[in-house]
Amino acid sequence: MMEGREDSDVIEQQVEDNTEKSSRSLAGSSPSVSPAGGGRGPCSSSHRLLNYSDALLSIIATVMILPVAHTKMEDDEQLRQSFQLLLTTKIAVYLMTFLIVTVAWAAHIRLFQVIVHIDDCLALLNLACMMIITFLPYTFSLMASFPDNGVGLLLFCGSVMIIGLIQSGIVLYAFSRPVLLSDQIQMSENRSFYKHHILKVIMRVPIMCFFASVISFVFFQLSYALLAVVVFLPYISQGVKWCRSKAIGHVDESPDTMLFSRFLPSEALSKERVEAFSDGVYAIVATLLILDICEDNVPDPTTVKKTFGGSLVAALQVYGPQYLAYFGSFATVGLLWFVHHSLFLHVTRTTRLMGLMNTFSLAFVGGLPLAYQLTHEFPRNSRNELEAVQISCVIVFFAGIFQLSIFVVALFSQQETLHPHVRHGGREHVFMLAKLALYPCVALTTFVLTCFLTKFSASIFHLMEVTVPLAFLVLRLSVRLGLAALRHVFCPEALGPQSVLEDAVEDNVPFNTCDLMSNP
Amino acid sequence: MMEGREDSDVIEQQVEDNTEKSSRSLAGSSPSVSPAGGGRGPCSSSHRLLNYSDALLSIIATVMILPVAHTKMEDDEQLRQSFQLLLTTKIAVYLMTFLIVTVAWAAHIRLFQVIVHIDDCLALLNLACMMIITFLPYTFSLMASFPDNGVGLLLFCGSVMIIGLIQSGIVLYAFSRPVLLSDQIQMSENRSFYKHHILKVIMRVPIMCFFASVISFVFFQLSYALLAVVVFLPYISQGVKWCRSKAIGHVDESPDTMLFSRFLPSEALSKERVEAFSDGVYAIVATLLILDICEDNVPDPTTVKKTFGGSLVAALQVYGPQYLAYFGSFATVGLLWFVHHSLFLHVTRTTRLMGLMNTFSLAFVGGLPLAYQLTHEFPRNSRNELEAVQISCVIVFFAGIFQLSIFVVALFSQQETLHPHVRHGGREHVFMLAKLALYPCVALTTFVLTCFLTKFSASIFHLMEVTVPLAFLVLRLSVRLGLAALRHVFCPEALGPQSVLEDAVEDNVPFNTCDLMSNP
Repeated sequence: MMEGREDSDVIEQQVEDNTEKSSRSLAGSSPSVSPAGGGRGPCSSSHRLLNYSDALLSIIATVMILPVAHTKMEDDEQLRQSFQLLLTTKIAVYLMTFLIVTVAWAAHIRLFQVIVHIDDCLALLNLACMMIITFLPYTFSLMASFPDNGVGLLLFCGSVMIIGLIQSGIVLYAFSRPVLLSDQIQMSENRSFYKHHILKVIMRVPIMCFFASVISFVFFQLSYALLAVVVFLPYISQGVKWCRSKAIGHVDESPDTMLFSRFLPSEALSKERVEAFSDGVYAIVATLLILDICEDNVPDPTTVKKTFGGSLVAALQVYGPQYLAYFGSFATVGLLWFVHHSLFLHVTRTTRLMGLMNTFSLAFVGGLPLAYQLTHEFPRNSRNELEAVQISCVIVFFAGIFQLSIFVVALFSQQETLHPHVRHGGREHVFMLAKLALYPCVALTTFVLTCFLTKFSASIFHLMEVTVPLAFLVLRLSVRLGLAALRHVFCPEALGPQSVLEDAVEDNVPFNTCDLMSNP
Repeated sequence: MMEGREDSDVIEQQVEDNTEKSSRSLAGSSPSVSPAGGGRGPCSSSHRLLNYSDALLSIIATVMILPVAHTKMEDDEQLRQSFQLLLTTKIAVYLMTFLIVTVAWAAHIRLFQVIVHIDDCLALLNLACMMIITFLPYTFSLMASFPDNGVGLLLFCGSVMIIGLIQSGIVLYAFSRPVLLSDQIQMSENRSFYKHHILKVIMRVPIMCFFASVISFVFFQLSYALLAVVVFLPYISQGVKWCRSKAIGHVDESPDTMLFSRFLPSEALSKERVEAFSDGVYAIVATLLILDICEDNVPDPTTVKKTFGGSLVAALQVYGPQYLAYFGSFATVGLLWFVHHSLFLHVTRTTRLMGLMNTFSLAFVGGLPLAYQLTHEFPRNSRNELEAVQISCVIVFFAGIFQLSIFVVALFSQQETLHPHVRHGGREHVFMLAKLALYPCVALTTFVLTCFLTKFSASIFHLMEVTVPLAFLVLRLSVRLGLAALRHVFCPEALGPQSVLEDAVEDNVPFNTCDLMSNP
């Protein structure tokens, strides 16, 4: 109790300090440095606003998988054809929504790297912005269902233009109250230059949408192409830039550009927000199936009486496969989250290319519940079941491979992005690789096995579901054994006094692996 | 770029410091104090695990409203009757789920106030625990549909017992590696005493469930009563304790009990986690309707051709009310989040009673999308529409009134729970009260108006939807004007030199209200 009071006193003290500082810099007398990271002060930290926005955006990015999952499959021998016919547009809508929402999310990150404090008015403007963003998936659905009709396109362009206007309003409001801005901009002399530049960057996409909507009255395909450019351009330009920098080497940047680029598209994504967004997606996806189960899989009392003679247990056994699908998909999504979590514990800085790989990984994760549901929906040994199992394997494989590629991309600039433990040659490096490679390898193996042993595809798949969580538990041990064996075979002389000393130093790493791995 | 590198170097340095400390205390030589707050170090901070758990739990708490919303209403004159017949069990399931999930969430908070660092094994155990918790809503559905059948009850009790076993496993594992525990327990001498006490607290509910499941074979109603006790006991005991402490005054606690109670049920809830859980609920609820809209409200191409002569705009106009319902519910939920956010900016410490009020508020917020959907589903001026509008008003009223009661409860022990700005007599106090009272007042007014002007109920409701966001924008100004008027009437002499000095001091608060309110 006493301690609690002391804590709050300390916080109060800090608050009063903050407020004095802020009001001083508001008066313009001395732009003092506000507390680093925004803290959790009660005044105007944007921390919780950003968390809420991340939660909203991650939900919106993911829910469009539900129409895909709810498409009724006919249980005939043409799953592939019905898949192509029924689902292509819905899957396209899902992927487009996911990408456009992540683009909007990245823009939101950049905006709130400039505006680090909020007040009531900004919070309300941000909510209005979120409301329009959450409407975007619906416009995509319209576009997909009526590709020849301009209404969906116009609605989409209109929404984007409104979002642009609200965001411009946010920028103008924030620059009119400089205390809300980040310290660098608060202290800089050419603040209006920044303002104009940020406005220019923000209005780029709405203006392209304006042209797209004008063109749509004349020539349709062109405006779709224009929109595709809008969605993919940031990713493409970033990829090209990264490849060039790898090929030519680092371009010398003047200090002026460096300061400038901190507020611009080339700026790295905030690691906290990448984590928050990913957490939201993983959480929604993990629970998508229970939503259906609670709604559809409670048997009707009259049916139970008539068909099962009043035995509820017998009635529930019919739904057995659905429960299995739920636990299977929850475990898979949970373990993929676990791998993601382990990886980001060692990441110090997220580049945009890493963010792109993360987005792709999350997009595949979103498809998982659907895939798992399919695997348990068809009768044993049908062709449909085999294809559903194989599709699941493909989705798991890509979700895992893109997670792995986050790590690979990070290794290319490991000095900036990774903790020393997991860099090349670090103790944890092999263990991290093993963790990341586990799901792709298992998925690939299952896929290949089901190609040969088509009769046992479902059994193989169930076996995989059960063994993977166990594999994660024994991964540590097996990596240690594998490394020990490798060392024993290839470099038995490496156990000299030098390496023993290194071991002793590296033992300080508080992972349990270390005390297992340090005595090879 | 350079700055990024420097940052990561700093972090690396910290990491190495951490790891040295942790491994030292692992060795047992000197249990040093680990960095405060867990930081964001790569080793084992539980920050992200808790965020993910909060997201999962808030989704699970809220999704059970979907079966309620998807219950097909017949558009006849007996909404109230069909409501009672069809929805009572579903709403009961929703509320029970919400309460049991919040109980599980509170237990999770307490557990991870003891265990402040995690490793891979703990993360996997926690995921397993989450998987079983997310299954609980389904067991409630079974219980509600088959109240006379023991299967649902047994499934529920079985799940709770498994959760208890996993949590005991987490405790045993954490106490076997003391580096994972909080500093107080790490340093304390009677660690095994703590372990036994925590295990006892954790196993209390599973053991009660065990007895309930045994009793269910003999006498049904008794086991339901036992379960109700399990769900509500923590809340009731807390309420009784609070009332007694208010009535008798603070009971003197020995320092030993104080240290002890930090890890036990009487401990206050972590403010960060209350915020994270609330954010999750508000985010899901705000987006629930777009999910239905994207799935159901995309017109069929053939229908458009046949019924509307190919005009998509005409076809979409049919769905107009649904869009209105979506934007209406998003705005309401968003603004309620905004009020919650404003309130918690000023809260320094969350007591359990405040958490209880927060839970009740969130439970009503969860019903909002359903209510809004209903208001736009019935033909104009039907009796159903009137009742739907009134139900919406009731839900909004209770959601707001429970938010207000968080503040009222906090005011009772304001020294511990609130920042000085919003305490009695503080500058922001009136403004905060106005913010919290806005929704209850508006809902009450709308309800009363619809009772008299039954013909215009829908128009009044739409008017409310539009005016409330505007009211929040001008709230500041109107509070200032109201206060100025009150002062002018009641205490014109209060504008002496003393109060001017106070004004000058309090002007440092960086809220925009202040520079409006300081010159009355």
